[in-house]
Amino acid sequence: MNRSALYVGEQTFVVEETASAPPGPGEVRIDVAYTGICGTDLHIAHGAMDQRVHTPAVIGHEMSGRIAEVGEGVEGYQVGEAVTVMPLEWCGECPACRAGHTHICHRLTFVGIDSPGSMQRSWTVPARILVPLPEELPLAHAALVEPTAVAVHDVRRSRLVAGEHAVIIGAGPVGLLIGTVARQTGATVTVLELDPHRRALAADLGLATVDPSTVDVAEHVRQATGGAGADVVFEVSGSAAGVRIATDLLAVRGRLVVVAIHPTPREVDLHRIFWRELEVIGVRVYQREDYVEAVRLVHGGQVPAQRLISRIVPLAEVAQAFQALAAGGDVKVLIDCGGDA
Amino acid sequence: MNRSALYVGEQTFVVEETASAPPGPGEVRIDVAYTGICGTDLHIAHGAMDQRVHTPAVIGHEMSGRIAEVGEGVEGYQVGEAVTVMPLEWCGECPACRAGHTHICHRLTFVGIDSPGSMQRSWTVPARILVPLPEELPLAHAALVEPTAVAVHDVRRSRLVAGEHAVIIGAGPVGLLIGTVARQTGATVTVLELDPHRRALAADLGLATVDPSTVDVAEHVRQATGGAGADVVFEVSGSAAGVRIATDLLAVRGRLVVVAIHPTPREVDLHRIFWRELEVIGVRVYQREDYVEAVRLVHGGQVPAQRLISRIVPLAEVAQAFQALAAGGDVKVLIDCGGDA
Repeated sequence: MNRSALYVGEQTFVVEETASAPPGPGEVRIDVAYTGICGTDLHIAHGAMDQRVHTPAVIGHEMSGRIAEVGEGVEGYQVGEAVTVMPLEWCGECPACRAGHTHICHRLTFVGIDSPGSMQRSWTVPARILVPLPEELPLAHAALVEPTAVAVHDVRRSRLVAGEHAVIIGAGPVGLLIGTVARQTGATVTVLELDPHRRALAADLGLATVDPSTVDVAEHVRQATGGAGADVVFEVSGSAAGVRIATDLLAVRGRLVVVAIHPTPREVDLHRIFWRELEVIGVRVYQREDYVEAVRLVHGGQVPAQRLISRIVPLAEVAQAFQALAAGGDVKVLIDCGGDA
Repeated sequence: MNRSALYVGEQTFVVEETASAPPGPGEVRIDVAYTGICGTDLHIAHGAMDQRVHTPAVIGHEMSGRIAEVGEGVEGYQVGEAVTVMPLEWCGECPACRAGHTHICHRLTFVGIDSPGSMQRSWTVPARILVPLPEELPLAHAALVEPTAVAVHDVRRSRLVAGEHAVIIGAGPVGLLIGTVARQTGATVTVLELDPHRRALAADLGLATVDPSTVDVAEHVRQATGGAGADVVFEVSGSAAGVRIATDLLAVRGRLVVVAIHPTPREVDLHRIFWRELEVIGVRVYQREDYVEAVRLVHGGQVPAQRLISRIVPLAEVAQAFQALAAGGDVKVLIDCGGDA
């Protein structure tokens, strides 16, 4: 038997006993250990994506687990093996896929949003989306591989290198992960965050923090960089103010990475972009090489998974888990899906 | 004796006999043959830059001429040699210079705006800003090397390559030059222009044109690119509408090059930048390698200088030259400074 958290719309979850789906050809069935709740899941739970998500829906995509059953024709995976997934399915035929940018497929299926996700005990998926995990990596920590892959992708696209100075605007879970990944490059990292609790979390992780409500950030960054400005700014706040300050902070030829989702167009200082030959770089999800690096960083402890997991909640209490995350104060909340017995 | 066009403020020029400046150490005196009028010169003549330009001012920086006198310690240049200039002087000490981006020096002097320019018969400049010209290149054509270097820089920063599709928004002189330079890469080029006269000029140069007031441009570009969208868009219109359409036109991983100067912040579709992993690239003036390529393209006729020069006016009639350019209908107006005797 299976046990699933079903999002039924109107900000409501029900947890039900359901049937396990036996794996078809090319598929595996996974006993899901943990599923993290990401910002998009929270949007779904708040009803903001009801047009896209077909209820009742099992959501969730930041997961870890062990292979329980292997379908016909699947090679390279064994029952009992620890895995996570890269929750993307692409068409292989659209212009983006043909250009090699499969993670931005024109008809991308995001598993856990556009198709059933991992907030359940038993989950059947195509073997091609699996990512193997080191046996000794705790499965709770492994649930952070997916958001870490986001951060790895963002830092890679920024071309940040040792000796450079990066500023991260916003210290939510993604901002914190970008901070821990960015400093692995050897760059200096400064985090801007208005909220004192989040700022303290960033400081606990050893990141330099600034409160932009009390400090002249542009002057602070100029001083810290010998008058040059920042080489890279990651805009993770999603705010108009974040976009406004980002261009002010950048050095000549600096790069602004747009990580947050800005639902409406933002005023951008194109004069500054011209004057300093800045670049603005869009980033979306990840590619398989980002997963490989993310597994390495979580496994090696460079991404301190243990310290980022603030709460683990049993599947039966999924609604409370979402409420806790929405209330603020948490970093990463995991659902214990019961498959790590 | 010298003869100079002096901008005296309030949209007024006077042409006066002045003294020639003998070249000091490291300098050369040039007999100026031609000086083109650029958009910035027009802004100055319209009083829009009176805060920056100290009157009376000799402006002009798109020039060609011959060396008339060589100062002490100047090596590699002979009297009679044909030259143009790269009108930039940098400090060599600021963070941008130290990072190798001397063309974006924090204390950049733009010769012809921040220091005396070439709308005069006799012009004395540091030898370090000279660019040698092929003897057989007509000096009138050579006055187009500077704006061509702008276009070369913009196309180089765009990373446009053969087989890609570029869209140019705006067919003023810079847009037309970008078009002629861009097609040298082997890319397909489409020019968007509202004005029928400018559109006809672009078509005369063999560029594919579209009237964005009568054609659904996004659909047109999608069709022309097998559904992918444009690889590169050059925003040369300076308009909010140009910025708005630019992101709509781009393919996954497409690059938007911000060529025009946008004096106020513009609304930019950051969601599209995220969704398609777009890049926005700022461009400013040029570097010496862009001049080398610009000389090659004007000399080889790939940039059809003869067809872009719509009018040549004697120095005494400088005011009429500016009036003609402001009235529209011209592409490139040159001042005959009298040094090509």
